[in-house]
Amino acid sequence: MTSFPFKLLAVDGGARTGVLKTPRGDIATPAFMPVGTAATVKALYPEQVRDAGAQIILGNTYHLMLRPGAERVKRLGGLHAFMRWDGPILTDSGGFQVWSLSGLRKLEEDGVTFKSHLDGSSHHLTPERSIEIQADLLGADISMQLDECTPFPCERDAAARSMELSLRWAQRSRDAFGERKTQAIFGIVQGSVYDDLRRDSAEGLKRIGFDGYAVGGLAVGEGFEMMCKVLDATTLFLPSDRPRYLMGVGKPVDLVEAVARGIDMFDCVLPTRSGRHGQAWSDYGPVNLKNARFAEDPRPLDESSDCPASRDYSRAYLHHLVKANEYLGSMLLSWHNTAYFQSLMARMRAAIDDNRFETFRKDFHDKLGQPFD
Amino acid sequence: MTSFPFKLLAVDGGARTGVLKTPRGDIATPAFMPVGTAATVKALYPEQVRDAGAQIILGNTYHLMLRPGAERVKRLGGLHAFMRWDGPILTDSGGFQVWSLSGLRKLEEDGVTFKSHLDGSSHHLTPERSIEIQADLLGADISMQLDECTPFPCERDAAARSMELSLRWAQRSRDAFGERKTQAIFGIVQGSVYDDLRRDSAEGLKRIGFDGYAVGGLAVGEGFEMMCKVLDATTLFLPSDRPRYLMGVGKPVDLVEAVARGIDMFDCVLPTRSGRHGQAWSDYGPVNLKNARFAEDPRPLDESSDCPASRDYSRAYLHHLVKANEYLGSMLLSWHNTAYFQSLMARMRAAIDDNRFETFRKDFHDKLGQPFD
Repeated sequence: MTSFPFKLLAVDGGARTGVLKTPRGDIATPAFMPVGTAATVKALYPEQVRDAGAQIILGNTYHLMLRPGAERVKRLGGLHAFMRWDGPILTDSGGFQVWSLSGLRKLEEDGVTFKSHLDGSSHHLTPERSIEIQADLLGADISMQLDECTPFPCERDAAARSMELSLRWAQRSRDAFGERKTQAIFGIVQGSVYDDLRRDSAEGLKRIGFDGYAVGGLAVGEGFEMMCKVLDATTLFLPSDRPRYLMGVGKPVDLVEAVARGIDMFDCVLPTRSGRHGQAWSDYGPVNLKNARFAEDPRPLDESSDCPASRDYSRAYLHHLVKANEYLGSMLLSWHNTAYFQSLMARMRAAIDDNRFETFRKDFHDKLGQPFD
Repeated sequence: MTSFPFKLLAVDGGARTGVLKTPRGDIATPAFMPVGTAATVKALYPEQVRDAGAQIILGNTYHLMLRPGAERVKRLGGLHAFMRWDGPILTDSGGFQVWSLSGLRKLEEDGVTFKSHLDGSSHHLTPERSIEIQADLLGADISMQLDECTPFPCERDAAARSMELSLRWAQRSRDAFGERKTQAIFGIVQGSVYDDLRRDSAEGLKRIGFDGYAVGGLAVGEGFEMMCKVLDATTLFLPSDRPRYLMGVGKPVDLVEAVARGIDMFDCVLPTRSGRHGQAWSDYGPVNLKNARFAEDPRPLDESSDCPASRDYSRAYLHHLVKANEYLGSMLLSWHNTAYFQSLMARMRAAIDDNRFETFRKDFHDKLGQPFD
């Protein structure tokens, strides 16, 4: 069974394009999902996210269960209506944020007990409750299994135990999800940097059977080279006819290298977080608009862009807004970055479809060393 | 001489409608000018300000001369191009902010020396320099004379001396401005709460001759009743064929009462400042979106509004965004408030044109006592 048909369109080396069909619309892959942590992609209107080219966004179970509360979102018609996003939404399981944001937490076979970073209140998250929140209350189109995010670095034995717990939670998440025609569930490969653990995790998930397979536990400090190595070792064991999702990644160069390794989906807060910190992303890398060299630069960030934030406002004005800590600076740079990431994905898809991804990849790396002008 | 023709369209009691014609477009009066302090109406895109109905905005000389610097704005093509607002812009003289924001300051006949609130640097502002900044460097359509903002409360003698200094600065501002075909300059009536000083100030300004006359030194703590009393005593001496501008005002009820007294133009940071603090303005007064009663209210702020912020987002969602301190909460409420203030002005203009302003005014006061629902 699978709820969402995934059609591969082109394969070019390890990279591939495809379409993931959902009741709320098609998703062209490789796809980058803007992150709408607290039911908003920060500093953007939903129309801007859609017009930038995003076909799916991510919502955070941890944040939403604490505020405004999953039951409340349900009573208000679900996450799509609540935040005015009628395209597909993928929600994470809450596990990662429990590890990174909450205070005291206790991990047991049953699940994890933690204290809210907002008010210190105590909460218990199990695979079953996570799926209930994601699929039933928020109404996510794609739910993620609850997993333990293995810390980095991690000894082999501990990584193995953690991966095995995540596998048992995968089964319980899958059972709790059951069979649904209009919603999907993805499993998450863990295993830290150990190739055989990654293989065992992937094999275990395949036996359970998911609509898609995510690679978790990366971009946690292992570095670019190690991430690529683990990706190579992991994708080998993932079914090629199902979408592969690299969680929480990343910088544009990470996206290019992961696409080269057969990844189909990404999410990251980077475009909007960078935007709020005065950074604009480009093919030349990140550009700090606070830099004095932009103070009287009348040119836009990218005159060839369709995005008004990239095309219509001068670098001098953006420099001023960032220096003055104005809302509009964060708004415009978050918008520009969101459009840039979507455009990067579109250019990668076009290159793969034209069987010239290696050229694109080489050009991308060449540009990365050059100055932004 | 006058650069900008001002045509009165209708008079209804003390209230009146008109059109102020400028090379950058007509301004229907009574008009409310959104404030673009640092070359941005906070948390709004310029298109939203225009689409909300604003035909003119205000820029702050004090802020812009300190950052990014008036000469820099000039080199970048002037304030209109810099901030992407092609409609008329009125700039204040910088005097009020020197009084309210800067640190050490020294007032002399020549002008005022002050320290920047940003970096402590020392600056000297004279009537001539203020006009140079406004008219020549920023390229304001309407410049304001430099004045001393009389403190409140103020003894009669001190108020008289202050008003007389402002009159001498009015003459110097007018002389510095000279004759211009495509730009205008307004004088500012001072005199604190003393009717005869207000009269003397107005008469002095008329002798000099300005394109419009502003009422300054109000909304500084004197209270609603006193403001109305001073307005009554001031407008009596202002020419009826020139626009009258009440500076820094105000709440919707202030606007209604000032329009009843023949005021044609307003500016205030209230719509956007309130928006950043979780407040939505309505005919029923300000509404605090943080209030728990909105937590599950699926209705928009105003379903009959043309403004997407007022019409398309639920109060429950706005409540959530404000509680979560999300950018989008400030963005939507600033947008709603800006549209509400413009709509209030449009409704007043329509009521005056239909000779039913007194009914509008009574209905407005009646509603103000009722709960927002």
